[in-house]
Formats: sequence, C-alpha cells, structure tokens
Amino acid sequence: MGRADVILDLDMADPQIEFWFDFSSSYAYFASLEIEGLAQKHGREVVWRPFMLGTAFEVTGARGLSRTPLKKDYAARDWARLARLRGVAFRLPPHHPSIALPATRAFYFLDAPEPARAVRFAKAVFAAYYRGVLDTANPEEVARVGEEVGADANELLRAMADPHVKALAKARSEEAVSRGVFGSPWVFVDGEPFWGWDRLTMVDEWLSRGGW
Amino acid sequence: MGRADVILDLDMADPQIEFWFDFSSSYAYFASLEIEGLAQKHGREVVWRPFMLGTAFEVTGARGLSRTPLKKDYAARDWARLARLRGVAFRLPPHHPSIALPATRAFYFLDAPEPARAVRFAKAVFAAYYRGVLDTANPEEVARVGEEVGADANELLRAMADPHVKALAKARSEEAVSRGVFGSPWVFVDGEPFWGWDRLTMVDEWLSRGGW
Repeated sequence: MGRADVILDLDMADPQIEFWFDFSSSYAYFASLEIEGLAQKHGREVVWRPFMLGTAFEVTGARGLSRTPLKKDYAARDWARLARLRGVAFRLPPHHPSIALPATRAFYFLDAPEPARAVRFAKAVFAAYYRGVLDTANPEEVARVGEEVGADANELLRAMADPHVKALAKARSEEAVSRGVFGSPWVFVDGEPFWGWDRLTMVDEWLSRGGW
Repeated sequence: MGRADVILDLDMADPQIEFWFDFSSSYAYFASLEIEGLAQKHGREVVWRPFMLGTAFEVTGARGLSRTPLKKDYAARDWARLARLRGVAFRLPPHHPSIALPATRAFYFLDAPEPARAVRFAKAVFAAYYRGVLDTANPEEVARVGEEVGADANELLRAMADPHVKALAKARSEEAVSRGVFGSPWVFVDGEPFWGWDRLTMVDEWLSRGGW
C-alpha cells in the first residue's frame, strides 16, 4: 500500500466533525450557524452533540460567563457585536441561562432513530432561545419546538421523563468530560480538540492543511 | 466643518491601541508578536500596559488556565499548536506560571521616561520567558533582561523595590480592573474592548470598518 493509500485511509477513517455544545451557550449558537458550511467546504459531516456544560463545570470549578462578574458584561457586549457582524437575530431570554436539560434529552430521543431530524430540532431550539422566546428548561415549551420538526409533542414530553432517555443524555455529558471537553462550543476534528467559536477559523485551516 | 473633517477628528482623537497583558499569559505572548503589525496596518500606535491578572481574578473569582483541571491540558496543547502555526519558539519555564510582579514594576520604571525602551524590554521579557529561561518573579533575572535594552541592572533592582514604582504598577492593575479588564491579552480600540488573542482578527476588522 502506497503513501497516498495510507493518507486516504486515514481521511476516510473518521470524516465526521463532532460539534459539542450546550444550548445555553451563546457562542455555541453562533457556531451552530457556521459549522455546517465549514464542514461542507471540506467534504465532512457534522455530528451534533448537545451536553450539559454544568457537568464539566463540576470538574473544572468554572462558572458560566453569565454568572461571573465583569465577564458577564463583556460577554453580553461581545455577543451583540457578533450578532451585528453576522447579521443574525440575538435576544437573550429573560431566564438566561436556562438549564437546557429537557431540550438535551429531547434531542437524544430524536437523534437515536433519525439524526437529521434531531439536527433540525437543535437548530429550532437555538433559533427560538436566541430570539428570546423559549425556555429550554421547560418541557412543554421544548415539546412545542419539537412539533416544528414533525415530532409529536406528547411523545416528546413522555421521552423527556423516560429513564432511558435521561440516562443517554447524562452519558453524553459524561463522555464529553471524559474526553476533556470543558467548554462550549467544542469541536473535534480527527481527534484534535478546538474550544470556542473563535477557533472555527483555525478548524478551517486545520482541515485545509490536514493539521500541522 | 464637513463630514470628512469630523471623521478625521474622531480618528485623531485617540489613535492609540491599548494592549493590556500579564507577562505570564501565553496568549498575551502570541498577541505581542502580532499587535504592532496590526496597528501599523491601520496607522495606529500601541500603548503597552502590563498588569497583574491576579488582581482581576480576585474580582471575577477566576483562576489562571494553568491552575485549572482540563483547561490546563487543553491550553498547553493549544499553545504548542499556535506556536507551530506561527513558527515561533515556545517553551514554558519550569516555574510557570510565575508571578510577574517584578517584571511589571521594571516595565513601568522604564516606561515613565522612555516608553519605546519599555516596549523593547517587554518584548525581551516575553522572548526569554517563553524560551523557558527567565523567571519573571525573580528581580535579579529581570534586571539582567533589562541590561539587554541598555538599562542599568542595579538601578532596575532598586526601582523594583521602590515604593513609588510599586504604587504605579499597582495603580495600573487597578485601572485595568476598573475598566472591566478581566483577562489577558486585552485590547481597547477607541473604547471598544476585545479579550483574547483570538479577537485580533476582529480588532483588524473593527479598525478597517471603523466599528459596526
């Protein structure tokens, strides 16, 4: 087998880009608007992986931006600046940051049989939350967003309370922490970790060069 | 006075870019290698402002990257990746993170009569620290770096112990916190705050557009 074959095999081994995020992370929202275009540019697919950032915070001892003095004010300014730059809607709901556990559980319930629908659901959750009209901690509101992507609201409500679905969502958060994920958004490309919306440019360069 | 005159006056009002940093911040090191080229591109000058990040951490309750589980490992990987990308030397000293108070005091002693020499000193401190051969917490070692930019080592040693110099360095750290600075590196452009090496691209765009 020649050198080109080896490289091809490596490229084919895991062409997916893993996109880890917490629905309550504003930088994840901005990244969610860019990650698919970035992946398509390089012929990659995106695997969407919501998780509970709070699980990681328990390990690092960190707090969310919106709960930290000084950082909170800067972050609000930075998000507004970023939204203007990208020309996208951005209004934090009054209850921000919500604990997005119901939305995360609903995602994995939808993801198991049909990942593409779960991705549409994730986008709808982001869109509603960052228009300020969704509480991701409220199962009834989350179920109504599910209806936008063709899910049955009552089925979703039952799923969010299902021990198996709860365990799956919990396992994903624990998987994130076990792999060193401590922030949101977080991208893995061929095993290489990138933290933050502001690393997407570097992810692009990494994919172009095949690392360095 | 026409519109063009008004814009010109605004541009001339405060053309300086403020570059705030802690010598022990690796991202500040990378930013220090880029900030002047960025400023020159837009006809601006850089004011270098070392400060003690620990003073800000007392307000936010944050900890340094190198003292935080998970973040510490990621940061080490990210710095090495960044150094390879930029093709620059990068080796953390064994005592990292040092408390760079002596180096910060020496900077302000040099800065008062001759800012340009203080900038050369800051660059020499960064270069030695991130080659792993300087302890910025050690006044004798800091004084020897001062000799590289033509300062008298004994005079620098006395200055680092001088109450007036100490007070000036402390006042700069308090100024930083009072203006909302909680991280390193930090850039102010026409009053607009930008946190992090990874915001330099946005600073460039801000300067090109005159904000948005």
